[in-house]
Amino acid sequence: MNLYEKLAAELEKQIKSETYRFGEKLPSVRELHRSAGMSISTILQSLYLLEAKGLVEAQPKRGYYVTYHPNQGKKTPVVYHPTQKEGTGDIEDLIQQVYGAHDEPSPTVNFAIGVPSTNMLPIARLKKIVRETMLDLTDACVQYEPITGNDYLRRQVAQRTSLWHHALSPDDLVTTSGCMNALALALMSITKKGDRILTESPVYFGTLQLAQSLGLEVVEMPTHGEHGLDMEEVKKTLKQTAIAAVIVVSNFSNPLGYSMSSQCKRALVNICTTHQVPLVEEDLYGDVYFGTERPLSCKSFDREGIVLWCSAVSKTLAPGYRVGWIAPGKYRDKVLKTKLYHQVSSPSLSHEVVARFMDKGRYENHLRQLRVTLHHNLLKYLKIIQEYFPENTKTTFPNGGFLLWVELDPRIDTSLLYQPALTLGIKYAPGRMFTLRDQYKNCLRLSFGLDWNEQTATALTKLGLLLQHQLVNY
Amino acid sequence: MNLYEKLAAELEKQIKSETYRFGEKLPSVRELHRSAGMSISTILQSLYLLEAKGLVEAQPKRGYYVTYHPNQGKKTPVVYHPTQKEGTGDIEDLIQQVYGAHDEPSPTVNFAIGVPSTNMLPIARLKKIVRETMLDLTDACVQYEPITGNDYLRRQVAQRTSLWHHALSPDDLVTTSGCMNALALALMSITKKGDRILTESPVYFGTLQLAQSLGLEVVEMPTHGEHGLDMEEVKKTLKQTAIAAVIVVSNFSNPLGYSMSSQCKRALVNICTTHQVPLVEEDLYGDVYFGTERPLSCKSFDREGIVLWCSAVSKTLAPGYRVGWIAPGKYRDKVLKTKLYHQVSSPSLSHEVVARFMDKGRYENHLRQLRVTLHHNLLKYLKIIQEYFPENTKTTFPNGGFLLWVELDPRIDTSLLYQPALTLGIKYAPGRMFTLRDQYKNCLRLSFGLDWNEQTATALTKLGLLLQHQLVNY
Repeated sequence: MNLYEKLAAELEKQIKSETYRFGEKLPSVRELHRSAGMSISTILQSLYLLEAKGLVEAQPKRGYYVTYHPNQGKKTPVVYHPTQKEGTGDIEDLIQQVYGAHDEPSPTVNFAIGVPSTNMLPIARLKKIVRETMLDLTDACVQYEPITGNDYLRRQVAQRTSLWHHALSPDDLVTTSGCMNALALALMSITKKGDRILTESPVYFGTLQLAQSLGLEVVEMPTHGEHGLDMEEVKKTLKQTAIAAVIVVSNFSNPLGYSMSSQCKRALVNICTTHQVPLVEEDLYGDVYFGTERPLSCKSFDREGIVLWCSAVSKTLAPGYRVGWIAPGKYRDKVLKTKLYHQVSSPSLSHEVVARFMDKGRYENHLRQLRVTLHHNLLKYLKIIQEYFPENTKTTFPNGGFLLWVELDPRIDTSLLYQPALTLGIKYAPGRMFTLRDQYKNCLRLSFGLDWNEQTATALTKLGLLLQHQLVNY
Repeated sequence: MNLYEKLAAELEKQIKSETYRFGEKLPSVRELHRSAGMSISTILQSLYLLEAKGLVEAQPKRGYYVTYHPNQGKKTPVVYHPTQKEGTGDIEDLIQQVYGAHDEPSPTVNFAIGVPSTNMLPIARLKKIVRETMLDLTDACVQYEPITGNDYLRRQVAQRTSLWHHALSPDDLVTTSGCMNALALALMSITKKGDRILTESPVYFGTLQLAQSLGLEVVEMPTHGEHGLDMEEVKKTLKQTAIAAVIVVSNFSNPLGYSMSSQCKRALVNICTTHQVPLVEEDLYGDVYFGTERPLSCKSFDREGIVLWCSAVSKTLAPGYRVGWIAPGKYRDKVLKTKLYHQVSSPSLSHEVVARFMDKGRYENHLRQLRVTLHHNLLKYLKIIQEYFPENTKTTFPNGGFLLWVELDPRIDTSLLYQPALTLGIKYAPGRMFTLRDQYKNCLRLSFGLDWNEQTATALTKLGLLLQHQLVNY
């Protein structure tokens, strides 16, 4: 054992014994240098090792913080098995209640919101790029784009896939008006009314709404809280049933927050290829990873063009700009036609602006900051949840994105608790929204894309106390 | 008879006897003042009278031009009766040929194009408004809009309907990503696969493509070249057949160029209301009128919310910006849901920019100029068609928009002539594209939204000569 490995092992023991607890700061490099009598470079090497193991995290200019949580794994929900029992009532009512336009009686801390806080977005730089674009372009982008979309944007997006196993070329890409629009174009192109599609469970409610509006039957699959779809079940189902498409959020899933491992991704692509079932991959959060590199996509394992990779900047840069894209593989012609018939073309101005923003390196710069901010937020959330939520609370441990799934005592119904929480100025997304089956009533989804401040901390604490109080009453 | 009426009658006689021919300039006010010995004010009154009769047109700073054409009416196609015979082959191939991305061998004068020339659009002013918007807005419109769309834009659009019988309020409107998107949202919301919809004939091919992609059966109705749908036939069909929706271009139709009279509009709304059939009204060209005021919409006669009024700035200001809207009447909830599921929201940046452009009076200013330009173009086109196209050519006489329908000798097949024309550097839209039936092969649609210059004039002349030549060969 090297010197730095020894120090790392010692620190690891202290972390696992909760001498340094989750969210706390380790002694500074200088302090360790003094107390351990090792060189700065050795100490840094130990810390890098701990970081690689996911036990600590460097916060720029602040030091190293413990990211290990004794409950990690133990308190993570394991596998969700969709019940056979169909849900009663329409989830539409619940969704309307949470996302419909209401006159709120008081300012609300909205943990249900599906986008990061505006304060986390690079508004000033974006404005500058818009102004520059207007000065540089002779035609202000007024004319229709080609049906495949803005060339500049497709080139930028393709460049961002250059490290994949199969990197994309601009020709592989078709722009869309955001990611939901990419999903809609995909499903309209490859399914027809009455078809069955296969999804995770719990699953993003927008996918359920879209599927229902297209007359598709949703088959929810058992899903692991840490790595997604149960591959054996998927395999079995594809063998036994006619499935028109599999649809999955591959990285930092909505709502569970898990990321499929590369192995799982490869396996899923293989299964789909074998059965010639198109795989619609929603990869909307993949750029916001907390690890050392961006997780791969299913698309990067796709040799036969079976994957329709859908993404956008809606969760990372500018939700309202409707800048998304799809790599539709061998369904390209169908997707192009659907796009043409329904929309003619994508919104030129915002697509040009985002292409420039990427080209100038601004997007990657911004993402770097966003990842750190969101990761810190997550740690702060988990700390409060550990302290103030009921003892038997389980959470997922997302390694990216900004969505956290919380599983509570089975006696709690988060739909019923929605109004009492709202009275306290707190909004969350009840678990029941994320399935068509009769389950997840004791779950909720929290966004950690909110600004971290006194108000947010207080709201989260209050929510925990409300849940505690609820349990006492049983 | 007043003095000014006498002068007007005299001038009318000279126009009708072709002393002053179509497209020529009348003597100036000063010249008439001298020769007729009447006051300037009397002379202006006579000219106003002629203008009101549609015989002449004032061109700012240039004088009065003859707009009367001896063939007007006589050579207009009367009623198009859809044949029972289904068309052979897929119109998709033809559309692909005309609108697909090709490497053209040489520069082409593209009469098939469906938008006005960029030179007719107020690029500099638009750019200025984009820059101003960026300076004024604190958040650069990055966040999702409310599901109904940008409030500012909806207010501006509502203001533009203030002279209607039933003016719209912002709440009546839902923004969309252009007009085609409005149509798609409308049809997805009110029809289901297998339904029948009723359209004009010939009908815009985009409507046919959309309907086919949604699995709808299209019933083409007999259509009058000057005022649109044959109301008796519509009434009969609605009585006998289950129709899910009627879809119509109410003003300066694509491809015929006619505008429905207010009477026809009212009648159509009444018929649809009686049968409780939604009326999807595409009113995309209505702002580009050549008369003295904007024609009304069907929506303005709609008391029961049966009309889904769809419009956009795509044909008048910025095709690529995808700024459109729909007033969905009583189908509002359905349309809102479809919009949410497929797109989440409209592109915020371009919608905000167009709202500002309207609010500052720039849109109306621009339209004033655009109307004059397009009207003059039409007159120049008609002049060349009269001189160089075969004797038995018929054209519609659009009173707005920029689309002209040309009916040729029945022996001519414009699909077959497409390639020879292309060799001459000329593109047009063959008539067969505008129906699913076996007809309109001897027709074509020309855009007069091209810059009028030597090249355009030569191309149009060449097209006429090509057609002449073709007939000689029969």
